[in-house]
Amino acid sequence: LFIPFIKFCINERSNGTKKSWDFMQTHDSVSVLIFNTTSHCFILVKQFRPAVYMSEWERSKLKPLQPAEEESAEPAPAEPKVPEEDKAGETSEGTSSHQPPASAGVTYELCAGLVDKPNLSLEEIARQEVLEECGYDVSVTKLRKITSFRSGVGVTGSKQTMFYAEVSDENHVGEGGGKPQEGELIEVVKVPLHEAMTFAFDESIPKTMGVIFSFIWFHSNMSPKYKISTNV
Amino acid sequence: LFIPFIKFCINERSNGTKKSWDFMQTHDSVSVLIFNTTSHCFILVKQFRPAVYMSEWERSKLKPLQPAEEESAEPAPAEPKVPEEDKAGETSEGTSSHQPPASAGVTYELCAGLVDKPNLSLEEIARQEVLEECGYDVSVTKLRKITSFRSGVGVTGSKQTMFYAEVSDENHVGEGGGKPQEGELIEVVKVPLHEAMTFAFDESIPKTMGVIFSFIWFHSNMSPKYKISTNV
Repeated sequence: LFIPFIKFCINERSNGTKKSWDFMQTHDSVSVLIFNTTSHCFILVKQFRPAVYMSEWERSKLKPLQPAEEESAEPAPAEPKVPEEDKAGETSEGTSSHQPPASAGVTYELCAGLVDKPNLSLEEIARQEVLEECGYDVSVTKLRKITSFRSGVGVTGSKQTMFYAEVSDENHVGEGGGKPQEGELIEVVKVPLHEAMTFAFDESIPKTMGVIFSFIWFHSNMSPKYKISTNV
Repeated sequence: LFIPFIKFCINERSNGTKKSWDFMQTHDSVSVLIFNTTSHCFILVKQFRPAVYMSEWERSKLKPLQPAEEESAEPAPAEPKVPEEDKAGETSEGTSSHQPPASAGVTYELCAGLVDKPNLSLEEIARQEVLEECGYDVSVTKLRKITSFRSGVGVTGSKQTMFYAEVSDENHVGEGGGKPQEGELIEVVKVPLHEAMTFAFDESIPKTMGVIFSFIWFHSNMSPKYKISTNV
């Protein structure tokens, strides 16, 4: 799920200025919580997001001495378990105070994609994204719908349907990584089950609400089947 | 949290056309899960969202015989507990097949607001929104941070911090409803605790992921204190 997300702005004034009522038309989307039953890991994607980077850049201009470091006064609720270099919001040596490091634009997200192929079902689109982004070949029948909701109600008003997919190492048929020719720059990341809730609520790890929601959904719905740490 | 959400588009070409890399700059935001301990209800806001309405309108053009009725083949996982007239995605008698009813643009959301006052803390902004939108006067010290995350990673890249606030009928000092002069059209809605999880996973009730996530967070974190139905 990358840049083609935005199709066009409507309600633009003829002179090119924007009204305060602008909103964007987009496609609906699917997202998938992937759980590898062989390694007992969740499979996420890690992406550089230009919009997130710009947001951090704006923040760094407001706080020139502490670029992208608004969290310092608020300790994370649990001890971080991910490598330090994976954390955004840190100043790398050698970068200017007005230029956050590229890592400041990175977020951890669920595998996701746009519903832009009218002949495919939501499940078929989800299946394609799991294969393209994460390299797992999962049958459509193995996709379980978690729920659907409105995303970006102030901007796009589109609908996202979230699925859960169990995969195994046997389904791992490729490297994933998305489609570089479409501008996707995706890294596949594994989050071990026993670290999942700590990961979810560690605010120093930049992520979407979808990651947190789906992890806590798994905890509530799959805990009889898989043991998950509850140290939050 | 309404229309001023969108400030301006950047990366616009000088001739007014849009690049595929467009994104929007916005303020960070706060959202608040409000629980009334007197009536054992969650307090949500119900808003007409132009972007959601336009999304449904576009959908209705794709399916002229079944406007905004994409859910028909997918029965909701639990029996709906809200009045029928509260549901979007229905065709009202007398409306054209190309004009969904206004209810199609309505969503249930957490009380929320923009972080657009540099002198106020996140908690103080959250407190103001609870008062303005929902009419409850809650002390800043009663606000508990749930977590924070990236919202709209493809478009805005801004950060949202989610709080939990317990209120009682004694804190109810006004009607709420937001600021009509700023275009806000907000109705305060109560969701009883024992219906919360059914509400959260009833896909025929249009809502944001924040509602679902915060309800399930409450279920995971507050269930020793308050009993919540788990019929999902």
